[in-house]
Amino acid sequence: MGRLSTLFAPDRVAVIGATDSDGAVGRAITENLQASFEGDVVAVNPYKETVLGLPCYDSVTEVDDIDVAVVVVPPDIAVDAIREAGEAGIENVVVVTAGFGETGTEGAAREEALRSAAAKYDLNLVGPNSLGIMSTPVGLNATFGNEMATEGGISFMSQSGAFVTAVLDWAAGRDVGFKDIVSLGNKAILDERDFIDEWGDDPDTDVILGYLEDIGDGGEFVRTAREVTQDTPIVLVKSGRTDAGASAAASHTGAMAGSEAAYEVGIEQSGAIRVETVQELFDYAQILADQPLPRGKEIAIVTNAGGPGVMTTDAVGDSGLEMAELTDHTVEKLAETMPDEANIYNPIDIIGDAPAARFEAALETVLGDDNVAMAVVVACPTAVLSFENLAEVVVDCQQEYGLPVATTLMGGKSAGPAASTLTESGIPNYFDPARAVDSLDALARYDDIRSREYVEPETFDVNRDRAGEILESAASRNQTRLGVEAMDLLDAYGIPTPHGEVVDSPGRADAIAEEIGDEVVMKIVSPDILHKSDIGGVEVGVAPEDVRGTYEDLIVRARNYQRDATILGVQVQEMVDVDAGTETILGVNRDPQFGPLVLFGLGGIFVEVLEDTTLRVAPVSKPAARSMLDDIESAPLLRGARGRARVDEDALVETIQRLSQLVTDFPAIVELDINPLVATGDSATAIDLQLTLDQEEL
Amino acid sequence: MGRLSTLFAPDRVAVIGATDSDGAVGRAITENLQASFEGDVVAVNPYKETVLGLPCYDSVTEVDDIDVAVVVVPPDIAVDAIREAGEAGIENVVVVTAGFGETGTEGAAREEALRSAAAKYDLNLVGPNSLGIMSTPVGLNATFGNEMATEGGISFMSQSGAFVTAVLDWAAGRDVGFKDIVSLGNKAILDERDFIDEWGDDPDTDVILGYLEDIGDGGEFVRTAREVTQDTPIVLVKSGRTDAGASAAASHTGAMAGSEAAYEVGIEQSGAIRVETVQELFDYAQILADQPLPRGKEIAIVTNAGGPGVMTTDAVGDSGLEMAELTDHTVEKLAETMPDEANIYNPIDIIGDAPAARFEAALETVLGDDNVAMAVVVACPTAVLSFENLAEVVVDCQQEYGLPVATTLMGGKSAGPAASTLTESGIPNYFDPARAVDSLDALARYDDIRSREYVEPETFDVNRDRAGEILESAASRNQTRLGVEAMDLLDAYGIPTPHGEVVDSPGRADAIAEEIGDEVVMKIVSPDILHKSDIGGVEVGVAPEDVRGTYEDLIVRARNYQRDATILGVQVQEMVDVDAGTETILGVNRDPQFGPLVLFGLGGIFVEVLEDTTLRVAPVSKPAARSMLDDIESAPLLRGARGRARVDEDALVETIQRLSQLVTDFPAIVELDINPLVATGDSATAIDLQLTLDQEEL
Repeated sequence: MGRLSTLFAPDRVAVIGATDSDGAVGRAITENLQASFEGDVVAVNPYKETVLGLPCYDSVTEVDDIDVAVVVVPPDIAVDAIREAGEAGIENVVVVTAGFGETGTEGAAREEALRSAAAKYDLNLVGPNSLGIMSTPVGLNATFGNEMATEGGISFMSQSGAFVTAVLDWAAGRDVGFKDIVSLGNKAILDERDFIDEWGDDPDTDVILGYLEDIGDGGEFVRTAREVTQDTPIVLVKSGRTDAGASAAASHTGAMAGSEAAYEVGIEQSGAIRVETVQELFDYAQILADQPLPRGKEIAIVTNAGGPGVMTTDAVGDSGLEMAELTDHTVEKLAETMPDEANIYNPIDIIGDAPAARFEAALETVLGDDNVAMAVVVACPTAVLSFENLAEVVVDCQQEYGLPVATTLMGGKSAGPAASTLTESGIPNYFDPARAVDSLDALARYDDIRSREYVEPETFDVNRDRAGEILESAASRNQTRLGVEAMDLLDAYGIPTPHGEVVDSPGRADAIAEEIGDEVVMKIVSPDILHKSDIGGVEVGVAPEDVRGTYEDLIVRARNYQRDATILGVQVQEMVDVDAGTETILGVNRDPQFGPLVLFGLGGIFVEVLEDTTLRVAPVSKPAARSMLDDIESAPLLRGARGRARVDEDALVETIQRLSQLVTDFPAIVELDINPLVATGDSATAIDLQLTLDQEEL
Repeated sequence: MGRLSTLFAPDRVAVIGATDSDGAVGRAITENLQASFEGDVVAVNPYKETVLGLPCYDSVTEVDDIDVAVVVVPPDIAVDAIREAGEAGIENVVVVTAGFGETGTEGAAREEALRSAAAKYDLNLVGPNSLGIMSTPVGLNATFGNEMATEGGISFMSQSGAFVTAVLDWAAGRDVGFKDIVSLGNKAILDERDFIDEWGDDPDTDVILGYLEDIGDGGEFVRTAREVTQDTPIVLVKSGRTDAGASAAASHTGAMAGSEAAYEVGIEQSGAIRVETVQELFDYAQILADQPLPRGKEIAIVTNAGGPGVMTTDAVGDSGLEMAELTDHTVEKLAETMPDEANIYNPIDIIGDAPAARFEAALETVLGDDNVAMAVVVACPTAVLSFENLAEVVVDCQQEYGLPVATTLMGGKSAGPAASTLTESGIPNYFDPARAVDSLDALARYDDIRSREYVEPETFDVNRDRAGEILESAASRNQTRLGVEAMDLLDAYGIPTPHGEVVDSPGRADAIAEEIGDEVVMKIVSPDILHKSDIGGVEVGVAPEDVRGTYEDLIVRARNYQRDATILGVQVQEMVDVDAGTETILGVNRDPQFGPLVLFGLGGIFVEVLEDTTLRVAPVSKPAARSMLDDIESAPLLRGARGRARVDEDALVETIQRLSQLVTDFPAIVELDINPLVATGDSATAIDLQLTLDQEEL
C-alpha cells in the first residue's frame, strides 16, 4: 500500500467543526461517520461540550492518534485548523471548507496559505472544496452527502462533488459497489495522479474511475497511469472536450486547461480508457470490475431472434471486436443439437421456440470453442422462454467456462428479476445489444492496454553542449524567433541538414559555395524578416560565379525592406531536390499540462488543407515514433502508393526520436517546426526550420 | 387517409385458422383480438364448431363485410386461404403463416404463388411470416405476442417480429405509446414504403419508426419519404450496416442487400433520420412524439452543479446544437435573481443550494429569451432540492413557454417519482446528460429536414437519340465495356470533351489532326485492351507529320499484343494540359436498391489513397450537385487553397447534373467513370471514359 493507505483506512477520524446545528455540513459529516464508521469519531469544536452524543474537544491537539482530520470550519479559520492538525501530527486532512481558489483573489491567497501549511507539515491533503471521502471496507463516510456507497471493487475520484452525490444516488439499489471514493475538490495538494498511484497498489481496487476537468501534470500522469494500467484498468471522463465544454470547465474550476488534442493523445498514451459519457463510464467500470479479461477479440452471439442478432452483429462491426469463426467441431455439434431451422454459424440463431435449455446447449458449445473469446446472449421474450431460467443458465455457463459474457434480455418488466440475477452475478445486461457489445469491447481494449510494452525512449549520442550554446547565443541577442540560422541545432542532435552555413561576408559565401561545389540556395537570415521569399530574400540555383553578387543583392533587398532590420547574414546552402522526395513536416508544441507534443504529417495540402497529422507526448520511444508514420491517412504515400518512391521510414523514425530528445533536453524550445523534412529512399533531411524560444527556461 | 386505412381500423376481422388448441398461434391471435378489439372477431376453421366461445365458420366466404383476414393456417394451404379471402372480397390480409421465401426453394415457390394471388385480387397483404399488426385506437391486436401496445403517436414497422415483441415488452410500463404497429415479415406485397405513405397521411401518427434489414425500392423509398418527412418524422434502424452485419442480415432475411454506402446516402436524401442503436431509436421517437419543434439550435443549460454542467456542454459540442448566447436582459435578470456565486452565463449554474423555486426562476428567464430555442435542466441530488417539485416546475415552464425541454435528474431511486411526472408529461429524462442533449438534437435535426427544399432535377436539352444510337451500336457489336470510343455519349449530353475522333485509317487520322492543328494524343481503341499504356497503345504529343506513322505503329502494337483483338480504330484527340487544371473524378455505379449513384471526388491520391469521395442517388438536382463539391475534405483545393487556381464550380455542378441525366435516361449504363474530369477556371472537360453496359436494359 502507498502512502495514502491511512487516509482510506483510518482508526480514528476527527471532524474539525463538528456541530449539531440543523442543516450544517459539520453535522452531516459527523452523522455520516457515526452511522457506519468502524473506528473512532472525534468531534472538535471549541464552542460545544458535546456533539450528537460525542464528547467535544477544543482542538485536535487534545486527542492522540488521529489518522484523518476532516476540516469543515469557515474559510477564514480553515488554514489555522489545518496548521493545528499538522502540529498534532495528523498526516491526512480532508478540507471540505469552500471559499478558496474557486472564488477569486482572496480565496486564491487563502489557497496559497493552505498549500504552504500542507507543505510545512507534509500533509496528505484532499480538497479544499471537497465533498469528502469514503471507504467502504471500514464503513468510512466522511462526506456530507446523503448516500453511503456499497462495498465493491470500484475506486472513484471526481473533480465534481455534485457528480459524486449523483453517482451514489444512482448506484443505490443497483449492483455497483465501490472501494474508495474521493471528491478531489480544488486539488491543492493531492490530485488524480496520487490516487491512481494509491489505488494501483490497492488489492481491493479492481477498477479506477475518474471524472476530471483538468490534469495537473500531464507527464507525471502518463508515467504513473502507464504503470498502474498494467494491473488495474483506469476509465476516465475528462470533460471540457469540446470548445464549448472547455470554456465551461474553465469558468467552473478556474483551471486553465491544456488543449484537447494534448489530452487526447496524453490519455491515450497513459493507458487510461477515456470515455465520453456517464453511461459509458459506468458500463465500462462494471464489466471491468466483474468479468474476466478475454483471451482475444472473437465474440460469439447466441440469440433466439434473427433481427436482434443482426443488430448485435452490427454493433460488433462498430467495435474493436471480431465475429468468432466457429471450429468445424462446434458447427457439427450445433448441427446435431439445434433444430434444422437454426443458423449454426455466428451469429447463432437458435430460433424463436428456444427454451432456456437450448440456450444452455448452444452457449456451452460455443464457450468451449477455442476460437471464441467471449459471448453475448441476445434474447427476445417468447411464450416458451423463461428469462429467469435463462439468467441462471448464463450465470452457470459463464462461471463454468470463465470467459466474459454479457446479455441483452430484450424486455422490460418481464426481464426484471432475470436482470437482477445476472447483474448480481456480475453479468451486465442491457436492452440495447450495442451497449452489451460495447462493454465487452472495453474488456478487450483493456486487455490490449495491459499487454502494451512501453519501451524507454532511446538516448542518442548528441552534442548537447553545442545546442545549448546556440540557444544561449540567440538569447544573448534577445532573439526569441529563430530560423535557418539555428540549423546547427539540428546538426548537433544528428538530424541531417543540407550542407551550408550562415555567413557574413561575400568572401565567406564564396568559400562555402566552393565547398559545396555546385549551384546553391542563398537566403537572407534575419529575425525581423519572417517571409523572406516575399521580399526577394531567397535565391535558388545560384551559380558559383554569382554567389558574391547575390550576397550583396540579398543584403540590399533586406535593407530596402527594413532599414534597421537585424541581419545575421546570408545562408548558403546545398540545393536539395525537394521534388525527388516526399515533403513531411515535423513539429513541436509545448502544452501547459503535457509538455512537448511532437507532430508529424505530410507537408503541403496534407497538413494545411486535410489536417492529416498525428501527435505524441514527448519523449517519443522508437515504437511510438514508428506508430506515428502509421497513424496518418496519407501513410500509403510514404510507402510507394501511386508509383511514388518509398521513403526511408527508419530515417524518419530516428529523426522523430532525435527531435523528441532535443525538445525534452531544452524546455526553452516552446515551438519548433521542421518544414519541410524531405524524406527520400535513403534519408530524411531538414530543409527549413522555425523555432520559438522562452528565454526564462534557459 | 390512404388505401391502407381499413387495415388498421377494421370493423370486422377474421382469423383463418382460429383454434382453441393450447399454445397454437391461431389461439393466441384469436384471444388477443377478443381481449381488446372494438369490432367483430370472426373465427374461421372448418374443423371446429366454436372457438373460444365464438361461432366458427368453414370459410370466410360465409361471412359478409370482413375488413381484414389474418391467415394462420399451415403453409401448404395458406395460399388457398388467401385466394378464398380474395374471392370473398376481403381487401386486407395479414399472413402470419411462415414457411415462404425465408425457407428455401419450396418456400420461394409458395411465396411466388402468394404474390400472384395477392395481385389477382389486388390485396393489401402483410407478410407472410409476420407477427401480425396492431392499432391502438380500435384496440386491434392481431398478433400472437404477449403484450398489447398502449395508445400514443408512434407508428412502428419492423422487419423482425421478435423485435416487435421485445419493444412491446420493454414499452409496457414505460410512457411509450403507439398508434399502429406492423411486423413486415417477408414484405411480399406491402413494404416499408407503403406504410410510410399510409402513416404520412395519418393525423394520429406523430412519428414513424422502423427497423429494416433492407429497402425494396430505394428510389421510390426516397421519393415517398421526402414527401412524408415534410410533416412527419421518420426514424430508422437499417441494420446490416457493417460487413459482418450485412452478411448476418443476408442469412437472416435472405434479402440481398445493396451496399451500405447506397443506404447511407439514400436514407440521408430521403429525410429519414437513421440511428444506429435501439436506444437512439426510442429516445428520438419519444422526444419527436412529445415535444414541440425548436425554432433554432440554441440550447440553454440550467444546472445546480458545475461538473455535470460541463459534461452537458460537451454533449452540446458533440451535437448539432449550439450554446445559446443569452441576451443582456436575461443576464441582468439572472444577476438580480440568482445568488452571487451563480454562473449567469450559459451553462447557467444556479449552484448547489438551489431549491426548485430557483430552478423555476432561472428556467422562466431563459425560456423567455429570444436567443434560446430549447433548454436542458441538469440537477444533482442535494438536501435542499426536491426532485418532485423540480419536475412540476419543469413541466409547468415547458407548457408555459412551449419550447422543447429535456431533463437530467442525476439520481436513481430518489429521482423515480419525479422522472415519472416528467415522462408522463412528455419530457424526456435521462441520468446521462448526453442522452438528453442528443434527444433535443434530434428535434433540431428534424426541423432542418422539414425545412429542406427539394428542387426538381434540371432537364437539359440533350441529344438523347444520338446517345441511344451509340449504346445500341456497342450492343450490336456485343460490346459491354466501352472506353474513349464512347466519348460522343458525353458530347451528346453536353459534357465537354477534347476535340477528337475515333478513326479507322491513317488518312482520317491525319485529317482530324489537321483540324486540331497542333500536337495530338493518339490511343488504340479496343474493348480487348484495358490497359492501353502498358502495351504502348497511347502516344502523347504526336506532331502533325508523325500522325500517319503513329497510327500504323499503334495498330501493330495492338496486334502484337493480341492477334485477334477487336480493334475499333485509333482515337486522335486534342492535347489537354491536365496540369493546368485540377483532376477530378465523376463516376456512376448502379445499386440494386437505389439505382444509379453518382460519385464525385478529386482524382489521383484523393480518390485512391484518401478515399475522399461523395455520393448521391440520381437524379441529382442542382443544389445537390453543388453540395457534393462541399462534401469532400479536399474541397478547398477546388477553391484556390495553397495558391491553386480556383476552378469553375458551376461547370462541375452542371457536368454532375448532365451525367445524372444521362444515367437516369439509360438504365443500361451500369457503371461509368469519367477519370479525369479536368476542372479549370472556366471549364470542366472529360478526358477519359470507361463504361459498362447491360445490354438487357437497352
